[in-house]
This record gives sequence, structure tokens and C-alpha cells, in this order.
Amino acid sequence: MDKQQLFENIKKKKSFLCVGLDTDIKKIPEHLLKEEDPIFAFNKAIIDATAPYCIAYKPNLAFYESMGVKGWIAFEKTVNYIKENYPDQFIIADAKRGDIGNTSAMYARTFFEELNIDSVTVAPYMGEDSVTPFLTYEGKWVILLALTSNKGSHDFQLTEDANGERLFEKVLRTSQNWANDENMMYVVGATQGRAFEDIRKIVPNHFLLVPGIGAQGGSLEEVCKYGMNNTCGLIVNSSRAIIYADKTENFANVAGQEAKKVQAQMEEQLKAIL
Amino acid sequence: MDKQQLFENIKKKKSFLCVGLDTDIKKIPEHLLKEEDPIFAFNKAIIDATAPYCIAYKPNLAFYESMGVKGWIAFEKTVNYIKENYPDQFIIADAKRGDIGNTSAMYARTFFEELNIDSVTVAPYMGEDSVTPFLTYEGKWVILLALTSNKGSHDFQLTEDANGERLFEKVLRTSQNWANDENMMYVVGATQGRAFEDIRKIVPNHFLLVPGIGAQGGSLEEVCKYGMNNTCGLIVNSSRAIIYADKTENFANVAGQEAKKVQAQMEEQLKAIL
Repeated sequence: MDKQQLFENIKKKKSFLCVGLDTDIKKIPEHLLKEEDPIFAFNKAIIDATAPYCIAYKPNLAFYESMGVKGWIAFEKTVNYIKENYPDQFIIADAKRGDIGNTSAMYARTFFEELNIDSVTVAPYMGEDSVTPFLTYEGKWVILLALTSNKGSHDFQLTEDANGERLFEKVLRTSQNWANDENMMYVVGATQGRAFEDIRKIVPNHFLLVPGIGAQGGSLEEVCKYGMNNTCGLIVNSSRAIIYADKTENFANVAGQEAKKVQAQMEEQLKAIL
Repeated sequence: MDKQQLFENIKKKKSFLCVGLDTDIKKIPEHLLKEEDPIFAFNKAIIDATAPYCIAYKPNLAFYESMGVKGWIAFEKTVNYIKENYPDQFIIADAKRGDIGNTSAMYARTFFEELNIDSVTVAPYMGEDSVTPFLTYEGKWVILLALTSNKGSHDFQLTEDANGERLFEKVLRTSQNWANDENMMYVVGATQGRAFEDIRKIVPNHFLLVPGIGAQGGSLEEVCKYGMNNTCGLIVNSSRAIIYADKTENFANVAGQEAKKVQAQMEEQLKAIL
């Protein structure tokens, strides 16, 4: 999916919501445990209920890997279900991968060739040759970690170099040499507030994947105030606050309603550019 | 496995070799492709041939994930095969994971609980709360990326802060607050030469996992000269140079011979401390 299509979808849905499929067998409604594949059954119901209100899904690989082979089967079924039934949805494999060149190439093959997923999150620590193998696939995206939503983001990402440039700024700036706003996005946590202003100085046109609203406490308004650009430039993720909003047999409906609430807030914010 | 046991194994085998199981279906001998599970068949033969000469195995997850569900099955079978037949071998899941706390906790559950693997490689970019969930398992290890073997290691890892401290040094120093030499090791590429001297100033007692000899061109002698400490402190990995040394039906024998050659070099180096 290219940038223009993504923006068209945002305009059509009046939403830039990504639903995070952090599906944990220990947290899904009990009645699903009798299903043959409880994880996929949960995801399918959540997807059907939320698809009208979002433009992307982000399964986090950790949750699937923790169940071994069964988890991988559920992950593949989930991706295929979205692609077949909601082909407009942008799919993000939240994997935070990154390794030496020949290994990153293997990861790229997994996500882009085998699974035909639109994008994958990548960690920048190992530098250029750990990232570029993901960039050789037409129409696919790298979403590079820049300034994450967690407390630990302060440990290294904010370290200033001799010229006063913080590490996340160096990541943003250096990676401009490897990619552009048609094949790279950046992860910036919603909890980072006004740092979005500094980020927009370096990457005015790129899309940002923004986790951290909902359970992690970030503010949608603040993110939009400092982060939105004229093609929206934001994909805002919510996982737990939507998918675990209810634990009864009515869970999917409630998840749909929660997604709809966020979509309404986003529609309001989009008035600034549409 | 604790540090003392690891050192005992090194002394017994006169080796600190780790064989990297970067098993690629496109690179294994053709005659194996008719096996029901060619990846596991390859690994089993390589393990049986190399076990006398090494103290650790390091399957790289990328290679297994690239084959989806089949790859995960082969990965699990490989881990179980080592644990059952060679319980003295230290197993490293080379996964380079790292995510927000609740997600890292899921990865830790996968590798340490579900699979009972000894250690997992973790990327430091997201800071403390992305690493500490891996540290709550008795007898298990985090192997944190510090200074990697690839060219891209220069992009961010060598960046100096205002006080002249390089990022990899900050990672080494800061992570001392989270862990100690009984539950943390560091990845330092064999290609980094005299940087080992600087690293030993910060972490004199820790084990270092050292990739990059063989195909990547690092020197074992140089690594030992600057990196070895009085409990060896080194686990040196070789992947491609051993496992793909031969592509005929004799591949496992040749891999064993290659491992034996490296072991002999290591025995020579170990004379400095034993």
C-alpha cells in the first residue's frame, strides 16, 4: 500500500486508528477457550467489530510467539483473514526486528514475501545494514523505532551527542539517507508530548506510528496538535483499551464501540486538515 | 545454567565455541530436501557432529521464522533435541528482541518458560523496562547487544555523548544497574578489535558473546588477546563457516572437522588462563 492510498483510506474512514492485536490467551473471554483456535476466534470477532472505525491492524508478534507453533498458526490466519476480508486495512507486523544484513533479509522475506504484510517495525540500534534489507520490497514499509512510549525510552534515546543532537533525532536524520516518506515511517510514543514538534522539524512529511494512548496514558489531542501534517501523518494505535474493554460474550461489540469512540475523536481532529 | 557451570564446560571441552544454527532451506545439502523436516534433519546432523567441540548452540530465530509454522516446529525440535541429548550445551535464542514491558514479558515467557532456553539476545534501544522482564528467571541470561559485528554498528553505537562516552559504553554501564555477571552477557562483534580493551574496563567479569569470526572476518587471536578474562569470559560464535563448510552428503563430518579446527585454536588460547 502506498502513502496516497493510506491517506485516501484515512479520509474515507475519517480515522487514523490502528487496532493493536496484542492477543493474550490469559486475557481473552473465557467462553472462547473452548474454540479450536481461541486466539484466532478472538481476533476475527475483534476485527469484524472494529474494521469500520480503523485503517490498520497491528498484531504484536510477542503475543503469538509466546504460544509457539499454535501462536504462529493464529498469527498467519489473522493476517490472511484481514487481507481477504478487509483488503484496505494496512497491516503492521509489530516485531521490532533488526539484525546483521543476511539475517534482516530473512526477516524481510518472512514478513513481506511469505506473509505479504504491509510493514514491519524495526529497531535501529544495529544501523544501516540491519534496516536496508527491509527496504527492497516495492510497496512495503519499514517502521523504525525513534522515540518509544515507555519509561526506558529515556535511558538511551534521549542521550545527547557532542553537538546536542539526541539519539532519536540522529536516528531520524541518519535514516533519511536510507529511505524516504514512501517506504519508511517512525515509531513515536504518544506519551512524548511536545517532542513531536522537534520530530516534525526533521521528518515533516513522514507517517508516524504512535502507540501509547489508552492504557499507557498518552493524549490524542496533544499528539494531533504537535504531530499532524497535511496528509495526516499519524497512525495512532490502541491495543488493550479496545480489545480488552469487555470480557463477556459481548466483548466484540464493546470493542467496536470503543473503537468508534476513538474514531469520533479522530474525525474531530481531522477537521484541521480536511 | 550458571556462570560456574559454563566455565566448567569450557574447561572440560577446552573450547568456548558456539555453533550458530543459521539454517537456511536454500543453503542446506540437496539430499536433505526429501526428509520430512529438512531443517531439523540438518540441525540434528550438525549438532551430533559438532557437540564434542563446542559449548553452546545459537539458533537465529530469523531463519526459522522465515519458514512460518514449519520453521517454528523445526526450531522447537532443535531446542528439545539439544536439551535431551546434550544437556551441557548452553542454548542461545538469537532473537534480538526488546519491547515495552508487558510485551518483553511475553517474549521472556516464550523463550524461558515455554522453551526452557538458557538465554536470549535483547536489543537495548528501548531501555530498562524492555530488558528487565527477561531478568526475572532464575538461571536464565539476557545477552544484550553492545557493539555488534556489522558495518552499521558505526551508525549509532559509536556516537559519543557530551562527555565523550560512546553509546555502546553507556549501554554497558547503564545496564550494570539492572543485572550482573550472573544473569547478563553482552554481544560484542569479533570485528571490533581493540574496542574489547575499552569494553573490559567497564565489564571486566562478564561473559561476552562474540559473533563475527569466520564469514564476517573477525580474528580469534585478537578477540582473545583483548577480551579474555580469568573465567574465559568469551563465547565465540561461528555459523556459516562451520555449518555450510560442505554441501555434499558428507556435510556433517566436514562441519565437525571445521568445529574441531576452531576448538584446537581455542585450546591454544585457553592456555593463557588454564
